[in-house]
Amino acid sequence: MKIKSTLFTLLLGSIVLNAQENLDFSGKKNIVSPEIKGKNITFRLLAPNAKNVKIQGNWSSNIGMEPGSVDLQKDKDGIWSLTENNLNPDIYTYSFLVDGVKVNDPNNSYQVRDVSSVMNMFLVDGKQSENYKVQNVPHGTVSKRWYTSKGFQEDRRLTIYTPPGYENSKEKYPVLYLLHGMGGDEEAWMTLGRASQILDNLIAQGKAKPMIVVMPNGHTSNTAAPGESSKGFYPIVMQTPDIFSGDMETYFKEIINFTEANYRVKADAKNRAIAGLSMGGFHSLYISANQPKTFDYIGLFSPATMPLEDKQSPIYNNLNDKLKIQQKNTYKLYWIAIGKTDFLYKMVEDYRHQLDEINFNYKYIESEGGHTWSNWRTYLNSFIPQLFN
Amino acid sequence: MKIKSTLFTLLLGSIVLNAQENLDFSGKKNIVSPEIKGKNITFRLLAPNAKNVKIQGNWSSNIGMEPGSVDLQKDKDGIWSLTENNLNPDIYTYSFLVDGVKVNDPNNSYQVRDVSSVMNMFLVDGKQSENYKVQNVPHGTVSKRWYTSKGFQEDRRLTIYTPPGYENSKEKYPVLYLLHGMGGDEEAWMTLGRASQILDNLIAQGKAKPMIVVMPNGHTSNTAAPGESSKGFYPIVMQTPDIFSGDMETYFKEIINFTEANYRVKADAKNRAIAGLSMGGFHSLYISANQPKTFDYIGLFSPATMPLEDKQSPIYNNLNDKLKIQQKNTYKLYWIAIGKTDFLYKMVEDYRHQLDEINFNYKYIESEGGHTWSNWRTYLNSFIPQLFN
Repeated sequence: MKIKSTLFTLLLGSIVLNAQENLDFSGKKNIVSPEIKGKNITFRLLAPNAKNVKIQGNWSSNIGMEPGSVDLQKDKDGIWSLTENNLNPDIYTYSFLVDGVKVNDPNNSYQVRDVSSVMNMFLVDGKQSENYKVQNVPHGTVSKRWYTSKGFQEDRRLTIYTPPGYENSKEKYPVLYLLHGMGGDEEAWMTLGRASQILDNLIAQGKAKPMIVVMPNGHTSNTAAPGESSKGFYPIVMQTPDIFSGDMETYFKEIINFTEANYRVKADAKNRAIAGLSMGGFHSLYISANQPKTFDYIGLFSPATMPLEDKQSPIYNNLNDKLKIQQKNTYKLYWIAIGKTDFLYKMVEDYRHQLDEINFNYKYIESEGGHTWSNWRTYLNSFIPQLFN
Repeated sequence: MKIKSTLFTLLLGSIVLNAQENLDFSGKKNIVSPEIKGKNITFRLLAPNAKNVKIQGNWSSNIGMEPGSVDLQKDKDGIWSLTENNLNPDIYTYSFLVDGVKVNDPNNSYQVRDVSSVMNMFLVDGKQSENYKVQNVPHGTVSKRWYTSKGFQEDRRLTIYTPPGYENSKEKYPVLYLLHGMGGDEEAWMTLGRASQILDNLIAQGKAKPMIVVMPNGHTSNTAAPGESSKGFYPIVMQTPDIFSGDMETYFKEIINFTEANYRVKADAKNRAIAGLSMGGFHSLYISANQPKTFDYIGLFSPATMPLEDKQSPIYNNLNDKLKIQQKNTYKLYWIAIGKTDFLYKMVEDYRHQLDEINFNYKYIESEGGHTWSNWRTYLNSFIPQLFN
């Protein structure tokens, strides 16, 4: 019953063309974009009819402004190109602007969503980015799992990283609770933050203790990332009204209880860490201050630090008193990091003065740059090795 | 230490604008795309300088051709639009073509990758698509987990669905091994196939037994989906040379052993099912034929059925003899489904004749349409309720 090779080769060709819908071979022929040669990256786009093609890359972004856009040059075949030189090792995102219309690079299948924008991504290799890559090391398991919140009266979604070997051991592990910013969700630390790669690599290098990492959704108005809840594929808008309700901080205990009931964890303060970026830093600050015996390790990455003046939640009251109690309970690390050009720099400076006035012990890192995933990946990579020692 | 509301409101506005990099508000103002009114969908794109804007949607695709493209019309504000009427309930994918350049819809953040193409997606509500949505029902856990393959001498990635309640029960569960096609990977059944939504919903409706679903990567040349292996962000090309090596079939036992060693499963034939689409149907056919006592439920969705004539792997030899043994072992369901316009229709017809000649018992479903995810979602939705009864 076997059929002839020649016929099959035709069929095989047919499979290649047809096996999946919408295979778009047009414009892909011989075009490599981005072409990565060390730190020099060439972008290309076939657009013979365009009058103007620009690239918006996050390497040229300024705080408080749209990322800068740079013109590409057109060749005789209608291919527009540009080479950016000397990009530091990191992960970058970009889009094209074709006659003013935002276009993703059709030759680069790797995309990532930040809030509502979907952008292409690429990695420049080097020491600084080595932990962001999938290396040939043992890999942890990444799960999307739902827990039932009595406080919110709904099921809510978590991303949970368990370290390599977790499933085949009887060991108990420490836990890092890792929180996203206002534009993010329970997927952001994995997609933009490269948390599973950073964990896998630091553990393999012996620089981090094997640990569980729990990444909740920090919006009270969402149960899960966009498209992953019963809201369906709704238009994504930045969530703001729920930030200062105090509910996320109040009900955070449920996430700890769920984790400790469902995973083999060391359930004491010296094996619990909490860290977050921006709004997640805000949450980490107030969750740890309101539960002063719960976490021995606290990380505030580019944090917002102060709530609205007229907010009534007791979560935000009497912070100084709470910090003094937290201080007495002798946490091991209170780590604050912010970029020199971050728009929250002044707020963090004020918060540091507040801490200084009560002789509250903290470690402070001031980096270059602003309110960026580049910084947050760096902070995570620096913070994790200091945990659970 | 609280700051004034007015100052904070400014800061909050600043957070909204700056919290994440590359927030692109341009072109998003007041534009809703797609706008879904029942079965009528309006697409819009702001492109005042474009001469020509088309949409390529999979609802207008023909087998063996690029999806048809339809012109949008421009209004005085430079917004191009088009309404498609009477789309059946389903999930659809599309891209725009702006003066010939493929563009994703910047107002629709929901995208899905099929092989190397990244396309926008949307859902038309209705009876046929209700199981593709995240409903307010208990949700299973979806994990990305690596197993060590001795045969391939590498760690390989699996997607594993465990049903709601798995973690808090002592029950043992049946297992469905669910395989992707030539253009896919271990993520395809989740992203394009909506497998976790289909499972959650069928289980909640009492139409399916709670089960574990194991989705391996079916390419011997990859250990994981593009971007998720140590190959990094390489340009994606369709993999063909590894399909008929027989290795995937030979080493499939490792995946069964891993699953049965690591999950609470009922480890016998009547609690094992294997199914796959296209190449995954090919794999399911030969894996089940070569391990005739292993699976009581076999599903071939638009399957390729015959290997290359000159392939030497014993996996593909003496199929008739193997099928006769499989038949004697009294499997419970051998389910074949294909669309009337599928380019593999003739191959499947030949295979059915082969089965008929030896009186091999099978159930055959002939649907409308071709080699599409629309069909594969429908097939999965029909196949699962027949398992483990």
